[in-house]
Amino acid sequence: MSKDIVQIFDTTLRDGEQVPGCKLDTTQKLVIAERLELLGVDVIEAGFPVSSPGDFKSVQEIAKLVKNATVCGLTRAVKKDIEVAAEALKFAKRPRIHTGIGTSESHIKFKFNSNKDAIIERAIEAVSYAKSFVEDVEFYAEDAGRTDNEFLARVCEAVIKAGATVVNIPDTTGYCLPDEYGAKIKYLYENVNGIDRAIISCHCHNDLGLATANSIAGVINGARQIECTINGIGERAGNTALEEVVMILRQHPTLGLDTNINSKLLNDTSRMVSQKMGMLVQPNKAIVGANAFAHSSGIHQDGVIKNRETYEIIDPLDVGVDESSIILTARSGRAALAYRAKIVGYELTKTQLDVVYQEFLVYADRKKEIVDEDIHQIIETSTINIESIA
Amino acid sequence: MSKDIVQIFDTTLRDGEQVPGCKLDTTQKLVIAERLELLGVDVIEAGFPVSSPGDFKSVQEIAKLVKNATVCGLTRAVKKDIEVAAEALKFAKRPRIHTGIGTSESHIKFKFNSNKDAIIERAIEAVSYAKSFVEDVEFYAEDAGRTDNEFLARVCEAVIKAGATVVNIPDTTGYCLPDEYGAKIKYLYENVNGIDRAIISCHCHNDLGLATANSIAGVINGARQIECTINGIGERAGNTALEEVVMILRQHPTLGLDTNINSKLLNDTSRMVSQKMGMLVQPNKAIVGANAFAHSSGIHQDGVIKNRETYEIIDPLDVGVDESSIILTARSGRAALAYRAKIVGYELTKTQLDVVYQEFLVYADRKKEIVDEDIHQIIETSTINIESIA
Repeated sequence: MSKDIVQIFDTTLRDGEQVPGCKLDTTQKLVIAERLELLGVDVIEAGFPVSSPGDFKSVQEIAKLVKNATVCGLTRAVKKDIEVAAEALKFAKRPRIHTGIGTSESHIKFKFNSNKDAIIERAIEAVSYAKSFVEDVEFYAEDAGRTDNEFLARVCEAVIKAGATVVNIPDTTGYCLPDEYGAKIKYLYENVNGIDRAIISCHCHNDLGLATANSIAGVINGARQIECTINGIGERAGNTALEEVVMILRQHPTLGLDTNINSKLLNDTSRMVSQKMGMLVQPNKAIVGANAFAHSSGIHQDGVIKNRETYEIIDPLDVGVDESSIILTARSGRAALAYRAKIVGYELTKTQLDVVYQEFLVYADRKKEIVDEDIHQIIETSTINIESIA
Repeated sequence: MSKDIVQIFDTTLRDGEQVPGCKLDTTQKLVIAERLELLGVDVIEAGFPVSSPGDFKSVQEIAKLVKNATVCGLTRAVKKDIEVAAEALKFAKRPRIHTGIGTSESHIKFKFNSNKDAIIERAIEAVSYAKSFVEDVEFYAEDAGRTDNEFLARVCEAVIKAGATVVNIPDTTGYCLPDEYGAKIKYLYENVNGIDRAIISCHCHNDLGLATANSIAGVINGARQIECTINGIGERAGNTALEEVVMILRQHPTLGLDTNINSKLLNDTSRMVSQKMGMLVQPNKAIVGANAFAHSSGIHQDGVIKNRETYEIIDPLDVGVDESSIILTARSGRAALAYRAKIVGYELTKTQLDVVYQEFLVYADRKKEIVDEDIHQIIETSTINIESIA
């Protein structure tokens, strides 16, 4: 079955970089942009050019550097923003302006003190103005997650008519449930005239831990771009994690969807971004966490030793991790102890293992993790005589 | 509308504690167990008693300490395991034995070198044997996520007939998509005779970043218990995060579901577990990450200053966080600068703000984060004369 490609729009350098403490200088941003291109992302959102002179310069330099990916700059639906973004993107091989405005009642009323018709007018004006500079214009309907579907469809129809090539449906506050977000995308496909002329994009926030699931619900229902960041960084609880959506599509071939990402670079890219931004990745982070492929319970270790696929759905090599680890703790079983003992040089008979395992448990109850040195210690001081095979 | 209660089964001390480096001693476990009870969890899975003498002792002490919650011990479908668990739970006011066996083809073939009928026999024997010690017996069908639904229904029917009060449907490898996991639970409700006599439980792993979404899909389709951990810790990429599922149900009242959790204790509990286990919580972790309520972009800060709900769906106080923070960086806008300047003692006129904002941007482009001291510095050295209102 030939697969539909979902475009990966990386916003690590925009939505990710605006996080407290994550600020990067232009040189650091160029290194990351180069890596993102190598990783195979389709679009790099390089910054918000009008926001500061430093950000303008970074977008400009990234636009000059990047060869294949589209380089995108964020704007509000404000003429000055669009002019500055166009200027920053002047040297890009594939420039995109990303403009938009809030469409939910809360945004229209409290943020803009405006009304629905006026918002549509501003949206059309912004897209048309951006189109006067570049061919590729993406429109975001901010807080689309809380915008009623009927009005959202009107907005989408209007901006596509005005020339938007991509329409972004952000769940800005991270509020939607997957079924709800999926149904929203489906509604747009069924109710927006001309929707086939644009790509629908998912931009989901993680306030309730659902960004990844919402993005997947979006593409199952027809969206063909996901906006995401390395390690899921971004405003508040962050954005959709690039590594998660990429691997979900790869692990579920029956969805008929794939991306252009070289997954073998995911682990290294994660580390690079984490180090440059000083943003820690928790050990239990999916795909790229330090423990993502670590097995510690006895039941699991036993299964993995017999057949890796018993407990592991992803081959660690596919995401650039050298091997899955079998880590010994007081929860480890006999099989794991025998396996590790053999690696460090002891072939234990069943009788020997029975004795050593009891000694191991007493030892392990006092220690968080058992390293090779401990195994030597336990075996050498054992009440049973064991000879090294090394 | 009266809401159905979803039981919260916390396995921080079992699935969480078996993680590399997370091992706790009995005293630490007792402190956490006490806190979990205060938080309002319905079931505390205290450990895997047969796995080591230390774990046995911890389960025993927790069983003595806990007053209201059910205390649960894990076992394999092995007589010795069940006997040891029953012994460890002897003093519990509400003891539960959690026993089970793998039901997927991969587990039956590679792990047990067995066949379907023999697995059902072992499942029935284990439940019946556990029932001879305690009334409350939970059965887990390990790797249910990859078990075909027809066989899974046969297993569920058999163990409920044998007396299981709870049937746990684990997505052991974190493979399922939310629609798939939800459909599995629905299938069981439609095809298992006697299912109303048991509670169906979700136990989802986070290998693809979908544990939370899968658990929610489970309860939408009829499950009434979620197995989860504080901060989502657990084997590999971890388990469902307790704080996420609790807040999703609270933020989506139309689902008609709630838990007994006192959400105001979530933030403190997260810190306590993180500290005791030495497991970092990443800043962009939903609900309990350090940045979960931090707003840094200019567009967002402006919105939050005008009306908190523009960008924030959860009141930080509801999860025990004192206030949402407005953090100044080079991506911050005029409104945020004026807001913070006022807090530190300067009421800026529009003209003053225009000048100071440009100076602020140059300053902020060189610095990751702007603290109050920097604001004084910028304003005192400004080219425009501003008097402090303090």
